[in-house]
Amino acid sequence: MDATDSRRQFLRQAGLGAAMAALAGPGAAAASLAQPLTAAMQNNDKKKLGWAIVGLGKFATEEIMPNFKDCQHSRLVALVSGSPDKAKKLAQEYGLQEKNIYSYQNFDSIKDNPEVDVVYIILPNSMHAEYTIRAAQAGKHVLCEKPMATSVEDCQKMIDASKKAGKQLMIAYRCQYEPFNLNAIERIRKGELGKIRFITSDHGRLVKPTEDKADTWRVQKKLAGGGSLMDIGIYSLNAARYFTGEEPVEVTAQISSDPNDPRFKEVEDNVAFTLRFPSGVLASCTSSYSYETVKRGRIFGDKGWLDLDPLSDYDKHNMKIGKQDGKEEPQLKEGNQFAAEMDHLSECIMQNKTPRTPGEEGLRDVRYIMAIYESARKGKAIKV
Amino acid sequence: MDATDSRRQFLRQAGLGAAMAALAGPGAAAASLAQPLTAAMQNNDKKKLGWAIVGLGKFATEEIMPNFKDCQHSRLVALVSGSPDKAKKLAQEYGLQEKNIYSYQNFDSIKDNPEVDVVYIILPNSMHAEYTIRAAQAGKHVLCEKPMATSVEDCQKMIDASKKAGKQLMIAYRCQYEPFNLNAIERIRKGELGKIRFITSDHGRLVKPTEDKADTWRVQKKLAGGGSLMDIGIYSLNAARYFTGEEPVEVTAQISSDPNDPRFKEVEDNVAFTLRFPSGVLASCTSSYSYETVKRGRIFGDKGWLDLDPLSDYDKHNMKIGKQDGKEEPQLKEGNQFAAEMDHLSECIMQNKTPRTPGEEGLRDVRYIMAIYESARKGKAIKV
Repeated sequence: MDATDSRRQFLRQAGLGAAMAALAGPGAAAASLAQPLTAAMQNNDKKKLGWAIVGLGKFATEEIMPNFKDCQHSRLVALVSGSPDKAKKLAQEYGLQEKNIYSYQNFDSIKDNPEVDVVYIILPNSMHAEYTIRAAQAGKHVLCEKPMATSVEDCQKMIDASKKAGKQLMIAYRCQYEPFNLNAIERIRKGELGKIRFITSDHGRLVKPTEDKADTWRVQKKLAGGGSLMDIGIYSLNAARYFTGEEPVEVTAQISSDPNDPRFKEVEDNVAFTLRFPSGVLASCTSSYSYETVKRGRIFGDKGWLDLDPLSDYDKHNMKIGKQDGKEEPQLKEGNQFAAEMDHLSECIMQNKTPRTPGEEGLRDVRYIMAIYESARKGKAIKV
Repeated sequence: MDATDSRRQFLRQAGLGAAMAALAGPGAAAASLAQPLTAAMQNNDKKKLGWAIVGLGKFATEEIMPNFKDCQHSRLVALVSGSPDKAKKLAQEYGLQEKNIYSYQNFDSIKDNPEVDVVYIILPNSMHAEYTIRAAQAGKHVLCEKPMATSVEDCQKMIDASKKAGKQLMIAYRCQYEPFNLNAIERIRKGELGKIRFITSDHGRLVKPTEDKADTWRVQKKLAGGGSLMDIGIYSLNAARYFTGEEPVEVTAQISSDPNDPRFKEVEDNVAFTLRFPSGVLASCTSSYSYETVKRGRIFGDKGWLDLDPLSDYDKHNMKIGKQDGKEEPQLKEGNQFAAEMDHLSECIMQNKTPRTPGEEGLRDVRYIMAIYESARKGKAIKV
């Protein structure tokens, strides 16, 4: 890295794009800005932001931790867990220092660890607020899993804590960093489907709390806050919002849970909800903990429809487009949505920009989720 | 045809299955009953019931009339139309006698025509009641297009008129005579998808009243009674009922129509509705007059899902089944749903049996449609 590269990188990290372009000289601006942010950083892990993972469940260990390898701006440096043995084993596997393993008790001392820039909260829903707030108070930026929290009040407290600390708070809406979804949004905005009239989206999977440890907390209201809607229906909800680019104004819903199924003593099973958007688009969505895995969405326009099935899987996404003159199946390149998501936050921190899915985005969904529950409970449409 | 065959056929026509079996002698009953009803009739058109078509629009002339060629028990003998020239031309094309052409004015004189057994009403929705009742009063059996009528009261009057006349009344729910749908129902009942949790179904097409004459009446409330829900949303509604085999107990709905779109000054465009069934199944459905043609349905069970896309087209149906261990696409044989539907009524008349989709079936859907409108209007769940 020569002096110019080093200077350029500093400016990029500081988010000084214009200064950077100026530095590069007239005519070089476009090329310079288009260049990957940290081409210069790639061989220098110390220039990547350091991440701590809080909660070492299945999603963290199987989907998140292995994907740091594809990050350009983010590296795994610390673990926070209630299982010291598990954490130790994983730390060894990932070459992490033992001093960078924290328990839930000594978590707050992470404030003294300059290696940790960002804390990624992957805990049961009801614990998101506490750990986000503690992380912010420890002076750390936060990526928090969805749903952001189990109440609107908690979401607001999380936003306030991060603001007070002058740190970033982003919610892990991975689909908003996933190439097929981004491509669908682009096609919609370009008018490829004509005027959008309807969105449908279905998200369901079988929870098996007695067979799969990862599902145990999902059927406990105290930990999960709610059932299928909070856990996976939120993908349908969020997709309806990013496909339309609008905020809903009214919701209606029905909930159905088998009273004899022990899985649904505390949380809901099946939810059908409809969102009305200001443009007149209706989104008709379902979520379930008792139908075989489905993660799909369709956008219906007056010039054609676009299917994503799956819409929100970890990989193997598929897009189909139907128009009057036939169907097509665009061959898009699968991307690492987890790496893209984490790097987005690292870049935003380096550039002092607001992430695409900040705390406010998470709060909105939690507010709509509460309105959906209210609509089902009261049997009436709820204005939001 | 020998004397026994002739006698057997008479008894079959009279619906005297038991007498027929007895006539055939012990041991022959099962084989005799399993045999196609009118094997003996096939070369004898006079033994087919005679049908009159009322209303010579696009659907009648392009889908119904050409399909009598595949009927075993039904033959086209008469036309009723407000366009004498059109009727005359079609009569020539189909080899019908000129005396068997009726106008709406002299329609009632059809009572004196013994060649006509069944009258098939293919008029705009609001005219179904009047012509069904006039046909019944003329002593004719009736097949009436869906929606049965534009009010529950009219449906009841139609049922009463047919009962009083001692004639059959069937509603043309062609999907209930279509092989892919019948196969799906069979798979559901056999438990192939496990416990059913959700149904989704979407039916939409672009109405173009200024471009397509067949769409003119569809956007006029006086003729159509309603918009997309009555015309095509009824496929979603009816499918949810025949897939579950249950009657809904509660409906919620939202309607959205662009107030600036001249097509929707009188009738609704987009409808999202949810039905709750006693078993706990929810059906989440959409209908639209402004999204590019979609006619699909999915059944979600805890052992897998089954897609029909299209579910309700005139041909080229497709079934996909998804289970934990992969997807399959059963290769079923496309059938002539129109011929099957018409022959079903002819057979029921000959056997004096109630058809699978009698007037009462049509009335139920109209009742649910009215509840869907009421739910959308009042912004609350409606018990049905």
